[in-house]
Amino acid sequence: MFFELNKDNGIPLYIQIESRLTHLIHQGILKPLERLPATRELSDQLNVHRNTVVQAYRELEVKGLVFSEIGRGTFVNKYIRPEAHRETFSTLTASAQFAYDGLYSDNWINPEDITMTAIENVVRTCQKPKDVIAFSSVVPDKHIFPLREFQNCTYHTIQKYGVDLLEMGDTQGFRPFLEYLPKFFVRRGMTVHSDDIVIVSGIQQGIDLISRLLLNPGDTVITEELTYRGSLRIFRSLGVNVIGIPTDRDGMRIDLLETILERQKIKMIYTIPTFQNPTGTVMPLERRKQLLELARRYQIPIIEDQYANELRLDGEEVLPLAALDKTGQVIVLGSFSKILFHGIRLGWVVAPNKGFFNKLCYAKRITDWQNNYLIQGAILEFCERGYFDKYLKKKLKILKERRDAMYEASRNYFPEEVFYERACGGLFEWAELPPELNAYELLMETRQRGVLFTPKRFFSAHADEDNGMRLGFVSYEPAKIEEGIRILGEHLKHALAVQSNTIPVSENIAPVI
Amino acid sequence: MFFELNKDNGIPLYIQIESRLTHLIHQGILKPLERLPATRELSDQLNVHRNTVVQAYRELEVKGLVFSEIGRGTFVNKYIRPEAHRETFSTLTASAQFAYDGLYSDNWINPEDITMTAIENVVRTCQKPKDVIAFSSVVPDKHIFPLREFQNCTYHTIQKYGVDLLEMGDTQGFRPFLEYLPKFFVRRGMTVHSDDIVIVSGIQQGIDLISRLLLNPGDTVITEELTYRGSLRIFRSLGVNVIGIPTDRDGMRIDLLETILERQKIKMIYTIPTFQNPTGTVMPLERRKQLLELARRYQIPIIEDQYANELRLDGEEVLPLAALDKTGQVIVLGSFSKILFHGIRLGWVVAPNKGFFNKLCYAKRITDWQNNYLIQGAILEFCERGYFDKYLKKKLKILKERRDAMYEASRNYFPEEVFYERACGGLFEWAELPPELNAYELLMETRQRGVLFTPKRFFSAHADEDNGMRLGFVSYEPAKIEEGIRILGEHLKHALAVQSNTIPVSENIAPVI
Repeated sequence: MFFELNKDNGIPLYIQIESRLTHLIHQGILKPLERLPATRELSDQLNVHRNTVVQAYRELEVKGLVFSEIGRGTFVNKYIRPEAHRETFSTLTASAQFAYDGLYSDNWINPEDITMTAIENVVRTCQKPKDVIAFSSVVPDKHIFPLREFQNCTYHTIQKYGVDLLEMGDTQGFRPFLEYLPKFFVRRGMTVHSDDIVIVSGIQQGIDLISRLLLNPGDTVITEELTYRGSLRIFRSLGVNVIGIPTDRDGMRIDLLETILERQKIKMIYTIPTFQNPTGTVMPLERRKQLLELARRYQIPIIEDQYANELRLDGEEVLPLAALDKTGQVIVLGSFSKILFHGIRLGWVVAPNKGFFNKLCYAKRITDWQNNYLIQGAILEFCERGYFDKYLKKKLKILKERRDAMYEASRNYFPEEVFYERACGGLFEWAELPPELNAYELLMETRQRGVLFTPKRFFSAHADEDNGMRLGFVSYEPAKIEEGIRILGEHLKHALAVQSNTIPVSENIAPVI
Repeated sequence: MFFELNKDNGIPLYIQIESRLTHLIHQGILKPLERLPATRELSDQLNVHRNTVVQAYRELEVKGLVFSEIGRGTFVNKYIRPEAHRETFSTLTASAQFAYDGLYSDNWINPEDITMTAIENVVRTCQKPKDVIAFSSVVPDKHIFPLREFQNCTYHTIQKYGVDLLEMGDTQGFRPFLEYLPKFFVRRGMTVHSDDIVIVSGIQQGIDLISRLLLNPGDTVITEELTYRGSLRIFRSLGVNVIGIPTDRDGMRIDLLETILERQKIKMIYTIPTFQNPTGTVMPLERRKQLLELARRYQIPIIEDQYANELRLDGEEVLPLAALDKTGQVIVLGSFSKILFHGIRLGWVVAPNKGFFNKLCYAKRITDWQNNYLIQGAILEFCERGYFDKYLKKKLKILKERRDAMYEASRNYFPEEVFYERACGGLFEWAELPPELNAYELLMETRQRGVLFTPKRFFSAHADEDNGMRLGFVSYEPAKIEEGIRILGEHLKHALAVQSNTIPVSENIAPVI
């Protein structure tokens, strides 16, 4: 086995190693059950630190391509189907393949995105095994969802609307569903007209469409620093600069925002004012007004992400920015992903400005024409029959129990250097670590013991710090939550002790092979 | 009523008038049942030709905003809900609204796209009334689809897979469906590995994702001249130049392609080799090989759009480009839209190059994460139970009858100056008109008699000619087809007679008000 690494291209070395090995396994060059070189051997050969190879092997293990046996080494999994079995595109060496490498557009996938995707793979792939506690997950328990009711809704909506549900319709969305949504928005304190709504495939697509409409390469957008990773990825893919405004317990700091706006041209503000992702903060009414006033003064459109507004667990609802806006400057994003299920890909954009709205419909049309009506019909039925309200009530009750369990466990097990608060809604608790700790390194440790979370850098526009953890409390029962937080607490205490040099670093490295 | 037109911005005047009137109606400034100014009065006031106002009023009528009564004038419809009734964003004058106008990104919606959208509205909006014969439609009869079977498939796939069908899964697609698709592709003569497939929301999204991955603003792509309008819209939105290569009866002319490739850098070739849209041609095997060889020599990826490969009515299947490619240079697009129904938004990209494939998955992920599993599960069930094959057989039989009816009617009613052939598959017949005729003008005439088609310029990258009609034969029974073609034939003969000055032009204008 022989390959070279590129130490200058900014791609982390362990990812380069992992990707080359993946390739060799898929090509069938490394065969099922074949032993990988010992980590020390490969690290000598490649002239990298042994831990780099260890990390690459871990990635492969997470991807299900290899397994390790203590004392014996790391082996290619038995059931990898080598690409060599394929009838087309089969016996090609890499050099005989068409070379796409020089052909990609400028803004796609920078090294940072590769790193973040690697992190995402770590925190997502491991969700399935039973013995893993993935606080990285915000997916609710399967058993609480009224599947049978949903199944009937799907059946009945086809009964009701027939083939029209399957054929091409309006880009804007399925009319009966559009007419229903304004009633739904009343929960959010918003008065919306059905003519201002476009159905999209989740908030992700909403951000993408709006960004493509409003942003040129080189433009600058404002987000909270930290924010939803999916938004950062879109901005990067469009060659757009991102400035993350620091937050405090009340969300985005308006004083700092003002300083930025005075200094430079900003094209768009993307904000999550309620249950901010990942910090969980809720921007108070007064600050919302300030934000609007500032954006009005500088004539900057605001994209308000309302991904989880229904999931309030304590306290009073704060009016959305959109409800305070009287000029059409605020564009709303929302979705059923977090309140029903992620995989249905059903979200909306509310844009009261007709000029913008028409362009948005055009954008949706050239992107994928329209969303499937069948799903819209099924969800409409689900809402109209009252199943949604019933489910939401049940879900909020469970979320509250779990939120409390996590907060209590944090108080019991986290060292006092860690800062966290009881989330007043949403899906996760945010824990801020002392600056000397690194959440990603911690994750690499805790994952050996089956506990996962999402490290701070994953949400960062700047990625210069990594002292925070997003801890989803949705997916596990209180006892599991306590167990996971206990393990996290142990590692946190250990890491702090290592930092203050009471424990030698070497003990901190868990054996992999 | 007072407004000004901008004669320099390239937007057709009739569209400007139509859009201002739409605004006034929606704002409630023009009230339900209020009479619009007489066309001559408004044309004098705006200093435009009366026909421009006539055309604007026609557009409003098509959009359902106004109706005309012969001898009385044109009136606002009764049931327009004025925007003034809205509780938010209501009493605003246009000047108090947030101004988006200077904020859009550079490449969105040029005047040509507005014109094309207007044409599209003409040919789409009118499909519903019973007395209209819309050859612009490629939507099959409702009654031939086995709805009950599909309904059961939806029900049973939920039974089988449960909540997993609704939650977040893999970006690539629903695994059992991905495993099934290679069997489906065998019909197309392709050997595909499930690991090379990404499920997307129709071909439209496939083109969008691939284009965003491969194209920078200023790049140049090749298409057939004429081609699928949706592709041109995407290229424009990305600031990409398009060169349309003229076609003959065997599709894209390779000799002309070669001339272009010698002269300038081309980034991508987008082609529809089978049942080309809109001309219906099938590129023969020999030419496919030449195309591949040429693309290989210049190292240009080929996007092969297989939107309707199953719909062969006569003759032998020709192997797809992808089946001839051994280097991963050809990327395949396909979808169930044309063979099942348009509104399910279920398509695929097949990309055997792993590097490209991974980037494509990333693009899909940041665009909308993944496609809904429920639909994939339902279609899988529909295919596995044999309903798809049964439906396809029935559909092909009906298509054949209708194709024959259209061809026969064309022979009976079209003047001999019109060129057309019996389509060997797909959904439409292409009719080439003598250069002196203009299809859009013809459409404006025939639409008064309830016959619609899609004019040539709609498919053109360059839009300098308009002497062709795409005539869909999917949506009507043979008798209706004959009736529509007869009317078209009359208008064609009339238009030719006008051109050769045997009839004065004035008679050619139908009264509107």
